[in-house]
Amino acid sequence: MEDTNCLFCKIIAGEIPSSMVYEDELLVAFKDINPKANVHILIVPRKHIADNNAYSASEDAEIAARLFEVAPKIAKEQGIFESGYRLVMNTGKDGRQEIQHLHMHLLGGNLLSV
Amino acid sequence: MEDTNCLFCKIIAGEIPSSMVYEDELLVAFKDINPKANVHILIVPRKHIADNNAYSASEDAEIAARLFEVAPKIAKEQGIFESGYRLVMNTGKDGRQEIQHLHMHLLGGNLLSV
Repeated sequence: MEDTNCLFCKIIAGEIPSSMVYEDELLVAFKDINPKANVHILIVPRKHIADNNAYSASEDAEIAARLFEVAPKIAKEQGIFESGYRLVMNTGKDGRQEIQHLHMHLLGGNLLSV
Repeated sequence: MEDTNCLFCKIIAGEIPSSMVYEDELLVAFKDINPKANVHILIVPRKHIADNNAYSASEDAEIAARLFEVAPKIAKEQGIFESGYRLVMNTGKDGRQEIQHLHMHLLGGNLLSV
């Protein structure tokens, strides 16, 4: 499951410190170290899936469903459930994906740009 | 399932025309009429779910998984699987949600803004 060169795998393994806000058996969530909004959390599957292109419908359905379940729960804990938020997943060059481990950005706490 | 005042429910019902690019029993996808990138597709559950806050873990897991499965397939059909893309879901005021029916934006075809 783990890619030993992957930053997020190292964070998940506890080898690199992070500000964790949520953990379960499928996902972790921690604060982005370079926040683009007042609230900027990364929700990350423990399994090393490189990006949305590498998602496996037969293997990863539970992870997809859990991301949808957990995002609003974290939004509530962060106080942005009512004010609103944006969920973003970037794939590849044109999407400006920075870490090759699938992650969902949860952004809010201020009016986001168009 | 249908909200008779909802624009996307009307598109799904065929009451309002759209440029459909994908349909299955759970989802439809059509071109955004006000594109923010060279490729801008909206992937929309047939079921009227208002937003990510209204997602039901017990009822909607299959929809979540299908969104993850279908997004890269549409990206491939649109010729942006390799070049990259961004998946975005907006909730509420700060997220600038415009239509109160859950939808995933698929954006690509050019380098997206940060």
